[in-house]
Amino acid sequence: MRAIFEPTSIAIVGASRDPEKTGYLILKNLIESGFAGRLFPINPKIQEILGLRAYPSIETVPEPVDLAVVVVPSPVVAEILKQCGRKKVKAAVIISGGFREVGKEGEDLEKALIDIIRQTGVRVVGPNCIGVDNPHIGMSMWVGIKKKGPIGLVTQSGLVGTALGCWAEKEGIGISKCISLGNGIDVNEVELLQYMADNPDTRTIALYIEGIGDGRKFMEVASKVSRKKPVVVLKGGRTQLGKTAAASHTKSLSGRSEIFEAALKQSGIINADSLDELYDFSKALSFLPAPKGRGVLIITSSGGAGILAADLLDKRQLILPHITERAEKRLRGVLPNHCIFRNPFDLTSTTSEMFQLVMEENLQDENIHAFMPIFADPLPRAAEAVKNVVDKTEKPVVVCYVGGAQVEETEKAKMHSMGIPVFSSPERAVNALYALVRRHELLR
Amino acid sequence: MRAIFEPTSIAIVGASRDPEKTGYLILKNLIESGFAGRLFPINPKIQEILGLRAYPSIETVPEPVDLAVVVVPSPVVAEILKQCGRKKVKAAVIISGGFREVGKEGEDLEKALIDIIRQTGVRVVGPNCIGVDNPHIGMSMWVGIKKKGPIGLVTQSGLVGTALGCWAEKEGIGISKCISLGNGIDVNEVELLQYMADNPDTRTIALYIEGIGDGRKFMEVASKVSRKKPVVVLKGGRTQLGKTAAASHTKSLSGRSEIFEAALKQSGIINADSLDELYDFSKALSFLPAPKGRGVLIITSSGGAGILAADLLDKRQLILPHITERAEKRLRGVLPNHCIFRNPFDLTSTTSEMFQLVMEENLQDENIHAFMPIFADPLPRAAEAVKNVVDKTEKPVVVCYVGGAQVEETEKAKMHSMGIPVFSSPERAVNALYALVRRHELLR
Repeated sequence: MRAIFEPTSIAIVGASRDPEKTGYLILKNLIESGFAGRLFPINPKIQEILGLRAYPSIETVPEPVDLAVVVVPSPVVAEILKQCGRKKVKAAVIISGGFREVGKEGEDLEKALIDIIRQTGVRVVGPNCIGVDNPHIGMSMWVGIKKKGPIGLVTQSGLVGTALGCWAEKEGIGISKCISLGNGIDVNEVELLQYMADNPDTRTIALYIEGIGDGRKFMEVASKVSRKKPVVVLKGGRTQLGKTAAASHTKSLSGRSEIFEAALKQSGIINADSLDELYDFSKALSFLPAPKGRGVLIITSSGGAGILAADLLDKRQLILPHITERAEKRLRGVLPNHCIFRNPFDLTSTTSEMFQLVMEENLQDENIHAFMPIFADPLPRAAEAVKNVVDKTEKPVVVCYVGGAQVEETEKAKMHSMGIPVFSSPERAVNALYALVRRHELLR
Repeated sequence: MRAIFEPTSIAIVGASRDPEKTGYLILKNLIESGFAGRLFPINPKIQEILGLRAYPSIETVPEPVDLAVVVVPSPVVAEILKQCGRKKVKAAVIISGGFREVGKEGEDLEKALIDIIRQTGVRVVGPNCIGVDNPHIGMSMWVGIKKKGPIGLVTQSGLVGTALGCWAEKEGIGISKCISLGNGIDVNEVELLQYMADNPDTRTIALYIEGIGDGRKFMEVASKVSRKKPVVVLKGGRTQLGKTAAASHTKSLSGRSEIFEAALKQSGIINADSLDELYDFSKALSFLPAPKGRGVLIITSSGGAGILAADLLDKRQLILPHITERAEKRLRGVLPNHCIFRNPFDLTSTTSEMFQLVMEENLQDENIHAFMPIFADPLPRAAEAVKNVVDKTEKPVVVCYVGGAQVEETEKAKMHSMGIPVFSSPERAVNALYALVRRHELLR
């Protein structure tokens, strides 16, 4: 696993000079993400790529190689893997497609790989994957992730890696590691779940799974791991159409899939229902404590925002407790008359400091287990106001900040840099909070 | 209505020099959004604001004023409205809060306004609103919208205006008009629905509603209008918690609300279930034709993307028809072996041209009513490939482009500038398509 996530030297077998080829993009990404170790492009026809000396084969590299990234056509992969064995390369990430997923011919090629893995002991990620990212050592093969963050991502689909990686990068949330399993002929979900559980950079594990080889073992490990860290799973192939599509993708069996889904519910894992939820839940669980109950205080300057949040809170069986008479009295003493002293607490026109004041006044209320400030105006100092509250409580503060003008973008970025996740709509904020509530209930 | 959406002169009553005051922000936004007409800041204590001469009262402005934007404290608003009457101002947008929504005292102030409206004939938007935007004349009061686009937005909540306005601006989609109704004491949803129906810049009408004064009239008009243009509605207060929150916001009655919801379903309106859906549906309906059936061809380079889309298509009762034997045969002749010639059509590793090829080969298939290309890799020329297909068919092409690196951002921006909406996840693309399907079925 160390060779996969923390190699000190990487050979890119099939590196290319053509800017539209994968063998070019991967090398370019590794250089641009700032990989700290040595990079060896392998291509028998070229002397130099992107300023790096190229070698005709991995065996001609004059130094040890920890990890090979393989992007040659599928019929050639077996030979490359043998060379890796002879070179004592510890692990190979096989990006190349054209195996089990394309039918009989590919299946045979894949079986040959499995034999070579047994013979050589080279650990293999893939084939048919988009690789491995570890921003802690400047290693990004596919999407160019640079930002170090708390989300450890294990995915059977490259798309999920691309989506979550890019979203986390763009928001300044970052990931700890990302690994795309592809056909998963060697390194598997169970090992990776264990790795992520022990990996100190990873606070939340996000999984995208279509099917599992050893479902029982997976469940056993997932149950243990999820006691230690939150595990969020998006299962591809939950419906008949989805299962049919999955059957041609990773060839997982739909029969197995149903048992698997039932078991997921008992394992302490949190289910996501879409790509957006997988991201939002992972983001919330990485940064926010789980609330000790279902009571939420919404603070907003927008009546509409409060209503939209309340609509979804109701569906999720969350509660909007009244604030205490004492808190109401004190707040009426300091806030303008036009506020609506209820829950949602509607400040109408407001300042960031008023948001802070309302939360602080209700910090000790034992019926309120979480705060949800919904900023709907371009309010400066929103980040500081929220941070002041976060520093004083163990209750989660789930922030929604709508709007994309300068002030909002600045405040969002500030909050993310302070480790305070921000959600872009009341409904997304409520769903994120709901993931936290489930986390608490699963642990209990 | 013309004075509200297309004024040639605006007085900002309560304009301020304090950068955190609404009276400053609104004036600044009107200047920065490039308002083509005359702007008159009104403030008795100041000579000049943001380079514009200020006047002590609206009556001292030496020219005619079409529209007054009022941001003074609620007890003063009545007096300002009387002055507007004397000055023969055609309409006033009252931003100020502190009326019905804050209780008895505010109710009395609001009643006084209604009396003045009757006496003077000044048309009033608000109070307690965020104003009116019309990018066609460079008029943006609140969120700084500049991009002209197809979505006409009528909202009872400022937040919804802020959210949709900002999202549409950021994506280069734009809006045609945006009006926030606030307490809606004069100008109402029915009038605005009629205005938007006749407004040539508006292709889709997006509504956020908590309650309606005259529900019967609204339904009558909505039914007519939705035959002409798509109308998307997000209803705030659909659950008990939401209704309770709505009762303190716009004081709409929950009893009425239930009848209203039932009627909505019969009116040909398309319901959205969240802020994100209101935006996505409006975006899809503005740019894409409605498909003539429920058959969808998914084309992707990511098996996972196809599965996630298929999962939601199944829930929405959409169909993934097999491609014809003829199409399969022809595509097998030109595409690489590693493709999966099914639906979802999985190109695995690919180029934009291959996406185009697969769609073109199936254009005439009468079982396929819509195309959904899901780009999951940084593919250049994706926009051109989609455009080539769009130009040849009346079937909708619902694009999903995941990823936020340079290539993806460029291609997304290109597509939006070509009038091709892009959705950021497979699930959001499927829901957008579903809105188109419902549109077709409602019209039929």
